[in-house]
Amino acid sequence: MTEKILDLVKRGEYGEARKELINLNAVDIAQLFEEISQEKLLIIFRILPKDLASEVFTYMSSELQQYVIELITDQEAVSILDNLFIDDAVDFLEEMPSNVVKRILRNTSEETRRIINQILNYPEDSAGSIMTIEYVDLKKEMTAKQAIQYIKKIGIDKETIDTCYVTNNNRILEGVISLRKLVLSDDSALVKDIMDTDVISIYTHDDQEDVAALFKKYDYNVMPVVDVETRFVGIITVDDILDVIDQEATEDIQKMAAMQPSEKEYLKTKNWTLAKHRIPWLLILMISASFTGSIIKQYEDALQSVIILAAFIPMLMDTGGNAGSQSSTLIIRGLALGELRTRDIFKVFRKEACISIIIGILLAAVNFLRIYFFEKTGVLIALTVSFALFCTVVLAKVVGGTLPMVAKKLKMDPAIMAGPLITTTVDIVALTIYFTTATWMLGI
Amino acid sequence: MTEKILDLVKRGEYGEARKELINLNAVDIAQLFEEISQEKLLIIFRILPKDLASEVFTYMSSELQQYVIELITDQEAVSILDNLFIDDAVDFLEEMPSNVVKRILRNTSEETRRIINQILNYPEDSAGSIMTIEYVDLKKEMTAKQAIQYIKKIGIDKETIDTCYVTNNNRILEGVISLRKLVLSDDSALVKDIMDTDVISIYTHDDQEDVAALFKKYDYNVMPVVDVETRFVGIITVDDILDVIDQEATEDIQKMAAMQPSEKEYLKTKNWTLAKHRIPWLLILMISASFTGSIIKQYEDALQSVIILAAFIPMLMDTGGNAGSQSSTLIIRGLALGELRTRDIFKVFRKEACISIIIGILLAAVNFLRIYFFEKTGVLIALTVSFALFCTVVLAKVVGGTLPMVAKKLKMDPAIMAGPLITTTVDIVALTIYFTTATWMLGI
Repeated sequence: MTEKILDLVKRGEYGEARKELINLNAVDIAQLFEEISQEKLLIIFRILPKDLASEVFTYMSSELQQYVIELITDQEAVSILDNLFIDDAVDFLEEMPSNVVKRILRNTSEETRRIINQILNYPEDSAGSIMTIEYVDLKKEMTAKQAIQYIKKIGIDKETIDTCYVTNNNRILEGVISLRKLVLSDDSALVKDIMDTDVISIYTHDDQEDVAALFKKYDYNVMPVVDVETRFVGIITVDDILDVIDQEATEDIQKMAAMQPSEKEYLKTKNWTLAKHRIPWLLILMISASFTGSIIKQYEDALQSVIILAAFIPMLMDTGGNAGSQSSTLIIRGLALGELRTRDIFKVFRKEACISIIIGILLAAVNFLRIYFFEKTGVLIALTVSFALFCTVVLAKVVGGTLPMVAKKLKMDPAIMAGPLITTTVDIVALTIYFTTATWMLGI
Repeated sequence: MTEKILDLVKRGEYGEARKELINLNAVDIAQLFEEISQEKLLIIFRILPKDLASEVFTYMSSELQQYVIELITDQEAVSILDNLFIDDAVDFLEEMPSNVVKRILRNTSEETRRIINQILNYPEDSAGSIMTIEYVDLKKEMTAKQAIQYIKKIGIDKETIDTCYVTNNNRILEGVISLRKLVLSDDSALVKDIMDTDVISIYTHDDQEDVAALFKKYDYNVMPVVDVETRFVGIITVDDILDVIDQEATEDIQKMAAMQPSEKEYLKTKNWTLAKHRIPWLLILMISASFTGSIIKQYEDALQSVIILAAFIPMLMDTGGNAGSQSSTLIIRGLALGELRTRDIFKVFRKEACISIIIGILLAAVNFLRIYFFEKTGVLIALTVSFALFCTVVLAKVVGGTLPMVAKKLKMDPAIMAGPLITTTVDIVALTIYFTTATWMLGI
């Protein structure tokens, strides 16, 4: 298909190419654009019907959007923008350099400019920043038939008319009704009698993560957004929520891996920016790992007399780290998905204590046998290492399980408390236990 | 609200309680059930209108579902099941013990039983297992008005009628049309003229992760499912996809933290099961960390003569581990979201090499100054540690970035390649570099 279109463009048969293109999905055309040369892209973009061009535009990468927008005329740019849903227009403008934004906004109608500016002003990651204003609002005195006629009249431009909202004259939400319900009802039924008055709405300043949680909880495809005075100002559709869920999971994963979170795609982020996101935590953790080193220094004499003790340090540290991050990861994810609440901390404590004792005994036993039979170090050293290992596993799991919950309770970010910070804590305590046991058991 | 209802139930005023309940959202009633005693639950459940009872039932935890289903009569159970959408019924039955499943299926109609059995037979995590069969299929010869009348007649029970599918007599998909389009079109318009023929469909055996990717790519609210003979058999709605996205992210996170993935909620999983999910990787990694130990053993003499070298082992290992997991995490997530493909491996290699050199130089410099001025170990040791640190960071990042891509290329799971496995690899190479440099620089 792609070959054929490119071939038609090459031979200048734009009419034929256009016919092929309108059979494709906008998403697929946008993907095709990523793979062809930029001059060809511009030609093809210009032969697309206006509606389709706008739709394709929303699915293009911001690099290509910028390229296109800088080469087309002001008139073409405005035509694209007018055909975009407001939330897509805002998404696009957020990624553009300010001179491009200025040029585009200068040419749009005052009303569009006002709305776009308003949405651009909502804090990043707030409900306001992902909502759109293309909704249908009905009045409760309408009949089902009148409502459908009204929708027919104004609905073409609306992002979703599958769900309509009923407001009073002060723009306060009074109910919600699906297009399906309207269609399935008698023509003469009054909206107020068939609408659902139990409307769950979102505030413009709510965090998008909480919004996603509501969508998941109630299985909605669209939810209404209200301002501080509870006036209906926009809607959020579920397709934007899919992205939010991915974004939030990515953010948590990045934090757990000791990075500053970023939404930008890896290949599209500058090396320097990536480095900046990684350096702070690496530095902090490097410095804090020095404390672990100072414990070893403290026991220098013991180590010197039984140098073999050093050989087990990596195993103790790694196993403690892995055991801790297993627990912290499960708990952090559970908190993020709302399956766990901070008041469950004692349950988590008990569970982790119990699990870690099972695991600790098993690992310590395997470890004892391995050291005793393969390393041939003698029973005392094998016992010392295995005992320290058991304590480390129990400690790592209990700390790993509860620390994220404490963090959440203290209104800190549980994800930051994951892997790395817990590793350092566990390392320090594990080595202290190790050397204390060793000096006592081995009499050094 | 909850207080009031519980109070009404206590005083036996069931009529009043019912009135309050029907104003609540089904999700909220289900949540209320989690918080009250089981006898009260059963009373309230029985006073709910049948439709609402079924809806509430789908949102209850499987523990409560089982409790309710075991106490109500067969007739009541069948009435609940008949009111459920097929996909919800299947979700519910999947969680029930087999005697409950048998009892319920025995009492349902043969047709329902056949369909449920069929869906229960699709592999877990396949498109077939999450689809529902409550769709509307139209014929292309219908007019918009006929189509709407047809929907009015049969649509009440359908999970989504916002999107309707057009099939021929062999149940092959010919097009898709939204209810919105039907409503907005002239009454006399033919479905075949206004439908969209570019239908993107899913096979019953497709993996749910791929299905979620299609939903995200095309921003659909519903997609059609076809069998191997491309006959239309069901639909998947976006609300089920929200859960899939969370599930898949959770699975990846668990794998990265060296656990066998599990979908079950933490608090609802038995301690023994949790332990079993964690033990295999902990054992494997414990054993492989012993190899790291054997490197130390190999350099026992060098270590004995400059015992201070041991104090820097934790810092080297931790920083290497953190640096590596930063890179592997970003790459694994990028692969999971489809932002990276295996053919990008050289780009990733170059990027990670460049980033790691920046970070390596910085960390090594800070480390050198810290050791030189605070630990006062002399220039040579500070240099040795810093050089080993630099090599470790570069190596950890390059391995961390490319290993998951190699895994994917070899059709292995990139997430398994994350943190832990990379840590072990990096540990071994880092300590080798450290001791080789030390013996050479310090002449030991």
